[in-house]
Amino acid sequence: MKLRRHVVVVGGGFGGLAAVKALKRAPVHVTLVDRSNHYLFTPLLYQVAMAGLAPAEIAVPTRSVLRKQENAKVLLADVTHVDLAAKLVHTREIPPLAYDYLILAYGTENSYFGHDDWARVAPGLKDLDDAIEIRRRVLIAFEAAEREEDPAERRRHLTFVVIGGGPTGVELAGAIAELATFVLARDFRSIRPDATRVVLVEGSERVLASFDPELSARAEKSLSQMGVEVRKKTRVTAIDSTGVFCGDERIEASTVLWAAGVRAKGLGATLGVETDRQGRVVVADDCSIAAHAEVFVIGDAARFVPEGEEHPLPGVSPVAMQQGRFVARQIARSVSVPEKVRERFAYRDKGIMATIGRSRAVASIGGVRLSGFIAWLAWLLLHIVYLIDFRSRIVVLIRWAWQYLTYEVGSRLITGHRLEVGAPASARETAAKPIALPQSEPAKSLSP
Amino acid sequence: MKLRRHVVVVGGGFGGLAAVKALKRAPVHVTLVDRSNHYLFTPLLYQVAMAGLAPAEIAVPTRSVLRKQENAKVLLADVTHVDLAAKLVHTREIPPLAYDYLILAYGTENSYFGHDDWARVAPGLKDLDDAIEIRRRVLIAFEAAEREEDPAERRRHLTFVVIGGGPTGVELAGAIAELATFVLARDFRSIRPDATRVVLVEGSERVLASFDPELSARAEKSLSQMGVEVRKKTRVTAIDSTGVFCGDERIEASTVLWAAGVRAKGLGATLGVETDRQGRVVVADDCSIAAHAEVFVIGDAARFVPEGEEHPLPGVSPVAMQQGRFVARQIARSVSVPEKVRERFAYRDKGIMATIGRSRAVASIGGVRLSGFIAWLAWLLLHIVYLIDFRSRIVVLIRWAWQYLTYEVGSRLITGHRLEVGAPASARETAAKPIALPQSEPAKSLSP
Repeated sequence: MKLRRHVVVVGGGFGGLAAVKALKRAPVHVTLVDRSNHYLFTPLLYQVAMAGLAPAEIAVPTRSVLRKQENAKVLLADVTHVDLAAKLVHTREIPPLAYDYLILAYGTENSYFGHDDWARVAPGLKDLDDAIEIRRRVLIAFEAAEREEDPAERRRHLTFVVIGGGPTGVELAGAIAELATFVLARDFRSIRPDATRVVLVEGSERVLASFDPELSARAEKSLSQMGVEVRKKTRVTAIDSTGVFCGDERIEASTVLWAAGVRAKGLGATLGVETDRQGRVVVADDCSIAAHAEVFVIGDAARFVPEGEEHPLPGVSPVAMQQGRFVARQIARSVSVPEKVRERFAYRDKGIMATIGRSRAVASIGGVRLSGFIAWLAWLLLHIVYLIDFRSRIVVLIRWAWQYLTYEVGSRLITGHRLEVGAPASARETAAKPIALPQSEPAKSLSP
Repeated sequence: MKLRRHVVVVGGGFGGLAAVKALKRAPVHVTLVDRSNHYLFTPLLYQVAMAGLAPAEIAVPTRSVLRKQENAKVLLADVTHVDLAAKLVHTREIPPLAYDYLILAYGTENSYFGHDDWARVAPGLKDLDDAIEIRRRVLIAFEAAEREEDPAERRRHLTFVVIGGGPTGVELAGAIAELATFVLARDFRSIRPDATRVVLVEGSERVLASFDPELSARAEKSLSQMGVEVRKKTRVTAIDSTGVFCGDERIEASTVLWAAGVRAKGLGATLGVETDRQGRVVVADDCSIAAHAEVFVIGDAARFVPEGEEHPLPGVSPVAMQQGRFVARQIARSVSVPEKVRERFAYRDKGIMATIGRSRAVASIGGVRLSGFIAWLAWLLLHIVYLIDFRSRIVVLIRWAWQYLTYEVGSRLITGHRLEVGAPASARETAAKPIALPQSEPAKSLSP
C-alpha cells in the first residue's frame, strides 16, 4: 500500500477551510495550521465591534468544524517561513512540517501605507481581538463623554472618524451612527449620544468604489440620512491619539478606526517568488506558484489575474472559497492520476453587497442593482444562510429580530485593559496607551 | 423646595446595585461609580472560564439595568480614596464627588497570602477579564499538548492544578474534568484529552468547608468519580509557570488556577477605620462605620458580626443584596424623617449550594441537605431564576439544554495575547508572559 500524501494548509479562513473540507474524500492526510483556534465569519465582524453580536456568535472552533473529517488534523501554530526546496513549513512552536502539497491561505493584515505607527491610534478590523478592542474604544468614548464637563473635550469623545470608504468603512460608520442614535441615546444622563459626530473619510471620488457609481451614490445618500459626514477625495495626513489631520484640517476625535487598506501577510515574501505591491503572491492559472506546482496560494494572499483580463480578482470570500475547492480538486486529481493536466481556475462572480445600517444596503447580483430595504433583506438572508456552518445561526437570527424590534443590542461589554478607563485630564496619554497591536510603534503626537 | 440629597454608591455588584435599585422611589439623587461597565452574574463566571457560556450571557451593561431609574446616574471611574471629613469620593478620572450618604460595596480581590507574585502564574476568578484569561489558558494547554511530541511535556500540558477547595475551586475542578472528558475528547487527534489530570488542592480537612461535613464528603466523592484528585490538608508552598510545590512534592502543570482566598479591595484601608485581617471594614449593626453614620460598607467589603455571634457573615451574594436593600431603607428613612432611629440589620439565611458538574451538586436549604441530581436541578433552577435580571436568560437556558443533550459547549474561543500560543521549547517563558494582572510581579522560578 502506498503511503498517503500529506497536504499542509496554512490559514483556516474561508479559503483554507474550504480546501480542507473539499479534501475530505481524497486519499491524503491534511494538516491545517492556524494561529487562531476558530473559524471566523468575518462579514459580521463589524457587528462584534459595534456590540451587536457576541464573539462566540460569529466564530466556531476549527476543531469542531473538522471533528468528523478523519483525514484532517488541526494545529495551533504561527508559521514563520516555508522552505520550498526542502518542502518544509517552519513554525514558531513545532518542529518543521514536511508536505507533499502546500496550500497557503494566510490572508491579509491592515496596511497603513508606510505609517505603521498609526496602527496604535487607529485600529483596523481583521480578527476577533481587533473587534473586541474597537468595541472597547467606542463604548469607553461614550463613557468618557458622560463624565466630561468641558464641552470641547466632550465633543472630541463623541467624534468618531472612520478612514476608508469601502464596505468595512461604510458598515462601521453606519453602525456607529445607529448605535449612538438608537441604542445608547436612552442610557446616558449627561450626554446626548445622538449628538455623536461620525466622519467617513475616503480618498477616492466615491464610497464603495468597487460597486456601480449609482449604488455608491445611493449608499452615500443613506449615510448622510443617518447623520454620517462623508468626506470624499480626502486624504488623511496624520493620526494621533486625539484626532486626525485631513490635509490642513484638524478633526478632534477620541476614536479613529482604520478601514483604508489591507496587504497580504508577510509570509509570501519569504517564498522568494514574485509578489505585487500589496504583497500578494503572483500565481499561475491553476493557483500554483512558479516552478512549484505542488504549492498553491489562494484567497487574499494571492494575485490571480484571469486570462485576458487586466485586474486581479478582488479580495472577497467567494474567490477564496472557490479557489480552495479548486486546488483541493487539483490535488485529489494528481494524487490519483499523476499525469493528469491541471485545470484552469475560473471565478464565478455571484455579485457583491454591502450593508449600511438598519434596513439599508446596496447589492449588485448578476447585473441587477438593488438598494434600500430589499437589498438589506437580501443581505440578511445571505448572511444567515452562510452562517449555516455555525451552530449559532438560530441565536443570531433571534438576536437580530430582537434588535430590529427593540433597538437593543446584545453585547455591550467593556473587557480588557481594565484600569485604563481614559481620564479627561490625561486623555492624550491614556488614549494612546491601551493598544498593543503587534506591529505598533509609539504614535507621534501631531496635535498643536 | 429642599435640595435632594446625593447618595454615592461605589461598586455595581450584587450589593451596590441592590442598594441603587432600592433607592428608586427615595427622594434622593444616586450616583453609582464602578470601574466596570457591566453588572456581572458572578455565580456563573466559572462557566465563562470553562467556555460553557459567553461573556455577554452573564453580564449586562449597568446603564441598561438602570435605564428607567431616573434618579440614578452611572459613572465609569476608579475610586482611589474617600475623604470622610470633607465627604468627598476621589477617583482617577473625574473631579471629587460630594456625597450626603455613601455606600461602599467595592467587593474583594484575590488574596495570595503575601505571595503576590503568584498572581501571574495562578490567576484567580474575579471578573470577566479573569474568566477570559483562564479560558484562554485552559484551551491553549490542550492545543499545546496536541502538538507536543515529548510525553512528559504533554503530560504537563494536560495537568491542571486548582488551588482552594471552596465552591469556586470545586466548580472549576469539576468543570475542567468535564470539558476534557465530554467535550474536547472528540476534537483532538494526537492526544486523548480524557487523559487530563485535574488536582484540587485544599489546605483544610475537607472541601466545601462552609457546608455540612456530610455534604463535603459527598462532593468529594463526586469529584473523585469525575476523575479529580482531591488533596486535602495540603499547602502549596511555591508556584511557577511550569507547576506547583505542595511541601516537597512537585506537580508539573502548565495551568494553575487560584481559588484559595480573597480579601477586601484596598479602598477600606484608606478610610482610617478599623479593618480585619482580610481587609474588611468593621461595621456597626446598621452597616455604618464608626463615627460616620452617613457612610455604609456592605457585602464582601464589610465585616459584619451579628449580635451575640462570634463569626462575621460570609462573603456571599445574599448578604450583599440584603444589606444593600437594608441601607437603602435606612437612607430613605433618615431623609424623610431625620430623627428616626436606625434599624439593625438581620441576615435571613436561605441556604448555600455548590455545583460540582453535570447533574452533580450539593445544597443546604433551610436545614435540608440535598446532593446529586436533585441538588443540581435546584441549583440550575435558582440560577435561571436569578438570571431573570438578564435578558439573556432564555438564551442561557437553551444553551444549557443543548449542552446537556449534546455535550457541546458554546464559547470555545481563544482571544487576547494572540502571538503567544505557548511554544514547547520556551514554555517556561511563554507561560509566564501573557498575564497582566494589576498586582502581578515576575514569578520566581522554583523549578529545579
